[in-house]
Amino acid sequence: MTSFDKLKFTPKEEEIRNKMITLKKEAGTHSPSIHTLTQLIPGLKIKVDACFLSNPYATELYMDYFKREIIDQNKLRDLLEFYPSQNDVIAFLLSSSINIDPKQIFIGNGAIEIIQAIIHRFAKKKMVVNIPTFSSYYEFAQDMVDVEFFKLRKEDNYNLDIIEYINFIKEQKPDTIVLINPNNPTGNYILKADLIKILKELSFVENIIIDESFIHFAFEDEFYSEVTLSKLVNEYNNLYIVKSMSKDFGIAGIRAGYAIMDEKKVNQLLKNGYLWNSNGLAEHFFRLYSQKEFIANYQFARKRYIEETQKFIIDVSKVANIKVYPSSANFVLIELPEEISSELITSILLIRHGIYVRNCADKIGLEGNYLRIASRGQDDNQTIIDVLKGLFN
Amino acid sequence: MTSFDKLKFTPKEEEIRNKMITLKKEAGTHSPSIHTLTQLIPGLKIKVDACFLSNPYATELYMDYFKREIIDQNKLRDLLEFYPSQNDVIAFLLSSSINIDPKQIFIGNGAIEIIQAIIHRFAKKKMVVNIPTFSSYYEFAQDMVDVEFFKLRKEDNYNLDIIEYINFIKEQKPDTIVLINPNNPTGNYILKADLIKILKELSFVENIIIDESFIHFAFEDEFYSEVTLSKLVNEYNNLYIVKSMSKDFGIAGIRAGYAIMDEKKVNQLLKNGYLWNSNGLAEHFFRLYSQKEFIANYQFARKRYIEETQKFIIDVSKVANIKVYPSSANFVLIELPEEISSELITSILLIRHGIYVRNCADKIGLEGNYLRIASRGQDDNQTIIDVLKGLFN
Repeated sequence: MTSFDKLKFTPKEEEIRNKMITLKKEAGTHSPSIHTLTQLIPGLKIKVDACFLSNPYATELYMDYFKREIIDQNKLRDLLEFYPSQNDVIAFLLSSSINIDPKQIFIGNGAIEIIQAIIHRFAKKKMVVNIPTFSSYYEFAQDMVDVEFFKLRKEDNYNLDIIEYINFIKEQKPDTIVLINPNNPTGNYILKADLIKILKELSFVENIIIDESFIHFAFEDEFYSEVTLSKLVNEYNNLYIVKSMSKDFGIAGIRAGYAIMDEKKVNQLLKNGYLWNSNGLAEHFFRLYSQKEFIANYQFARKRYIEETQKFIIDVSKVANIKVYPSSANFVLIELPEEISSELITSILLIRHGIYVRNCADKIGLEGNYLRIASRGQDDNQTIIDVLKGLFN
Repeated sequence: MTSFDKLKFTPKEEEIRNKMITLKKEAGTHSPSIHTLTQLIPGLKIKVDACFLSNPYATELYMDYFKREIIDQNKLRDLLEFYPSQNDVIAFLLSSSINIDPKQIFIGNGAIEIIQAIIHRFAKKKMVVNIPTFSSYYEFAQDMVDVEFFKLRKEDNYNLDIIEYINFIKEQKPDTIVLINPNNPTGNYILKADLIKILKELSFVENIIIDESFIHFAFEDEFYSEVTLSKLVNEYNNLYIVKSMSKDFGIAGIRAGYAIMDEKKVNQLLKNGYLWNSNGLAEHFFRLYSQKEFIANYQFARKRYIEETQKFIIDVSKVANIKVYPSSANFVLIELPEEISSELITSILLIRHGIYVRNCADKIGLEGNYLRIASRGQDDNQTIIDVLKGLFN
């Protein structure tokens, strides 16, 4: 194994490293974007943004349609000048693509707005969040809500122990619980059958939020068929399915997301807000998503990306001296040897190799030094593998 | 004056008219967009959308910059693929253009999100809203908030009587009051000096919301200098200035707005929400708005539009048999003779002449039959004038 003592930074590199540390601090529990980084650190060249969790092939597909349907048809002005449709109109557009009653659909300005809307409106006294996880779930809780953490155990590879979890919830009696499936930053996946067990056992919990923002990267059969619990909203009226479109469709910039929930809850949210929370591009995207041809092409891009991602995870697992956690998402969680800080490796990868990864030092609930590395296109993934091998083998 | 009895609708026209009535009902207290109308009423041709309140010259200017900076530079994918910056980063971008401390700026996904955020978070028991007005202010009030209306009087041309208003507020003791300046749908303008009088007298009111979404169309001097009360947030920490960018910049589709308020309130809002509520196009717009050259060109487009709008209002005033209210906004409120319903004229204008105007029958606080007609480009305005003359002279 390389001795990291040899990898001393030059004064110039040390300066960049310190700037990165400052920027990370300022970005709170999220990472500074590559735009912020390159803008504030002149001379920094980012070749691979492996901090960014999205399917680049889906972005390509979307851009292709956007060019054909909007740019080439001179329709861009229409999307930017006029008011987009109201929430329920866009819900109706989406309903055929996901085969859900439009009255059960709540459209959001990104999944993040939906998380906020649900937690602000429906979480009342106590919320249980599993850690490690996406921090907004506990950060968005209002002051009157107690947040209790359910710690996923390192010895279980941060997998959820269903029985233990059910017992914990029965004991704690929260009104709101959150399950991200697959989880971020671990990539752990809870089987549909296990989630149904949880729903059955925890019917007393008022709000069960299942965040399926990474679900298009997971699969339970050899055909990579899409999995979702959306339909179960008919059976469990305490269930909320939250879905970002940013990751699987690669369109974080347009802010599109939706949630499936009991019709009464959609009405409660729309009763005094969220009237015009979609922009023109998001509305166009939801129209696109209702086209059969687009969906067929998307499924192709999705399955190609899943295959490459699974290969990437296997390749990363072969790098010596690091521990790689199994993942059903589009990223992989890596544990570094005890004596090597995640900040050091993040800096080396960025400054020396132009690879931007997520330093997980701020993620509560992770024990050890961790990086989260996204799967990108084939060539970028190969670059990451080669650099990791050079560093750790 | 034309006898409207002669204007009998053909069965085909009657069918369209009935569809319009249904669509209007479904859209609640807002109007169906021209997209919804043309999609659901085949054969309907809209030539002038005078329901839509925006400066078309500003849209042209924006599209010109968008083409040069984004499309031609191949930067569109960057805006759509990656996460936009967080709220405080965009506030910082905007701060130089409006000369306000970034800590006092809250960025919104359109002004509508800001109205919702302020009212949901800060209005506690009682809110006073002047009517007629933009309905979202009272519709967004949560169940525990009493909404009291202050009726603007027809005999005052719906102008606010400052003394009477101050006395009413002192008597009612609401925690939240709302003033839209210029008001929608009347176009009435409250002088800056009068608003300062209100602020001085009503320091006991916890939240004074002044919505300046149409303020770029108003002026108090011959140079059409921009007016705003933004700076007064330093003096009055109960003041909120709400600002849509949709109307003056003609970019309703990208959803961009901001509010100026006491730093502590911005922090309260950002503490558990609104992290990534801007999309990539909105962020680019705020970057554009910080460019001196763009602002200079915008001021030219703004002043040209003000001049044409003022001329339009004078021309409409010369049409016989209708009453035209003075307006400092980019639209004009018209009162029809008692025996003629606003629905009838709206239908005639749309079906026979392709002109879409706002039927104000659902606006509470207006006594009589009213239409609101937006000022558009010069030619469109002339078309409107000619048709109105044909109908009413």
